[in-house]
Amino acid sequence: MDRSDSVGEIGERAVIAALTAAATAAGPVDDIVIGSGDDAAVLDIGGSAVISTDTVVEGRHFRFDWSTPQQIGARAVVQSSADVAAMGGRTTGLVVSIACPAATRVGVILDLNDGVVGAAHALGARVLGGDLVAAEQVVVSVTAVGALEGRRPVSLGGARPGDVLAVSGPLGASAAGLAVLSTPGVDDAQWTEVVALHRVPMPDLSQGPVAAAAGAHAMTDISDGLVEELITMSRAAQVAMAVEVAAVPRRPDLARLATELGAEVDEWVLTGGEDHHLLAAFDAASVPDGWTVIGSVREATSTTPEVWVDGRRVGAPDGPDLHGWQSFAEPRG
Amino acid sequence: MDRSDSVGEIGERAVIAALTAAATAAGPVDDIVIGSGDDAAVLDIGGSAVISTDTVVEGRHFRFDWSTPQQIGARAVVQSSADVAAMGGRTTGLVVSIACPAATRVGVILDLNDGVVGAAHALGARVLGGDLVAAEQVVVSVTAVGALEGRRPVSLGGARPGDVLAVSGPLGASAAGLAVLSTPGVDDAQWTEVVALHRVPMPDLSQGPVAAAAGAHAMTDISDGLVEELITMSRAAQVAMAVEVAAVPRRPDLARLATELGAEVDEWVLTGGEDHHLLAAFDAASVPDGWTVIGSVREATSTTPEVWVDGRRVGAPDGPDLHGWQSFAEPRG
Repeated sequence: MDRSDSVGEIGERAVIAALTAAATAAGPVDDIVIGSGDDAAVLDIGGSAVISTDTVVEGRHFRFDWSTPQQIGARAVVQSSADVAAMGGRTTGLVVSIACPAATRVGVILDLNDGVVGAAHALGARVLGGDLVAAEQVVVSVTAVGALEGRRPVSLGGARPGDVLAVSGPLGASAAGLAVLSTPGVDDAQWTEVVALHRVPMPDLSQGPVAAAAGAHAMTDISDGLVEELITMSRAAQVAMAVEVAAVPRRPDLARLATELGAEVDEWVLTGGEDHHLLAAFDAASVPDGWTVIGSVREATSTTPEVWVDGRRVGAPDGPDLHGWQSFAEPRG
Repeated sequence: MDRSDSVGEIGERAVIAALTAAATAAGPVDDIVIGSGDDAAVLDIGGSAVISTDTVVEGRHFRFDWSTPQQIGARAVVQSSADVAAMGGRTTGLVVSIACPAATRVGVILDLNDGVVGAAHALGARVLGGDLVAAEQVVVSVTAVGALEGRRPVSLGGARPGDVLAVSGPLGASAAGLAVLSTPGVDDAQWTEVVALHRVPMPDLSQGPVAAAAGAHAMTDISDGLVEELITMSRAAQVAMAVEVAAVPRRPDLARLATELGAEVDEWVLTGGEDHHLLAAFDAASVPDGWTVIGSVREATSTTPEVWVDGRRVGAPDGPDLHGWQSFAEPRG
């Protein structure tokens, strides 16, 4: 198989065989009973299974001129696995569906698959199978399956007044990296780390099981921006969420980058999505190592979602207007 | 929400909320710990989980002028669940990713979701969650998760010389329905049943667990045509597969339809895909009720896949040349 041949020329069977070989090259894992290559995979979950799916679309969620195929594959795995971690689960298996134009070079699909397989291995998980179909545009769907290993699942909606809010990593890096890529004339070479974090977020997803074991009351991953996730948690629990901007961890280099770009670092931190670190509500005495307290949960004063940033209510006439990103808003491509 | 509004106008959050409401309307099920609407779903598998994913693309696997959105959704569920059944699993949960143009009417997506939810319920399964993203074309990915309930999973590759080959339902109906839809001037009204079976195949997927419990040595679902699946099983087990065309069950009305269309009924039966009935290899004494014996497994006489139809080897210079369908071949749309 020549990597410069198109998927249409090679045919899906031969390409799927190559993808399967790459997925199984790492050898058997204890909890995989039957892996990639059969009708379906069989995974020994040993209790409750956590399942989540995420889809990324060319020109919308990624661009081949901004990211390599490996990065695109790795990012899709991180996105789905972050949802599993946000329930307290450890991702153990993934299935991947790739739709692409027939003219797509096979090398692109093999590289994308390498990114998927590599990111899966980094999480201690394996690619269990997938599908490859023809479409007008590249669309990658990753479904992650994880194990709770006896932990109680942590839902979105369990925050209680009196809880503290904490995050598992520094926010805003992905938004800052996107700003570098979107601003003509910026010296990319100086900002390779934030650009890399935009291409492939690097949350420590082991903190999901850690938080669940510590008794977190509510948890989610920050995919749409901190404020947007706080709104979601507030709505789900009918409580108010209050955070202090200065308490939200961020990389020290973001301030200088924001100055250079004429941007607001706090906006990246509050509304920048796709960092995929975890946000959780804990008893104040139960915050695990590795988490940073950024605010607290209060009784709601109204029936609509209620998020306070530095004492001002988001969306109020005199409050900040901070929103995240939705797929059907402007395309990135 | 007005069903004639576009998904882009309504925004993904509101549409996802409506989809989630539809998925959860049926109420809780014992084995679903956390269902649709959180970061991820939690499913009590109680042992090994079976996982499979399938993707269908507008203009390639379906056409909105040939199928309703409900039919498209239902068909995607049947395809994924057939793979789970082919391992001996019972599908208990599904996650669904829908990509669509922003201009797609919300009613189309709600109807598609209704088809997914209805087909899931018919299988005793539930929709656990999903994703909705913008794309140039409608792409639907369904991942089915099932339970083995103590049965040994049945792989593709376990056929042994001396086994009998059997199928769990009549073949060729989907191909016949496609022929009706593709042939100008045919009276559709006379052939509603085969057309309906092309739009939504109706395999009895409970036969997957039945076959596993009966000790089937190998099993797959017939998605790419009988001969193509026999080739796959032959390759996986290094055995020869021999079938008699006359033994393969088919609906009695297919012969008359083939005559009307100038088509070959045996070609539909042997190479027509997408019926999604099951094909399995059993000890001759272990074939369960509901299965029809169509041939037997023999020692291989060569190292290449070896399928014999009525005593002639498929692909041999003097043998029949019968092949199934690949996604990257000609588009249907």
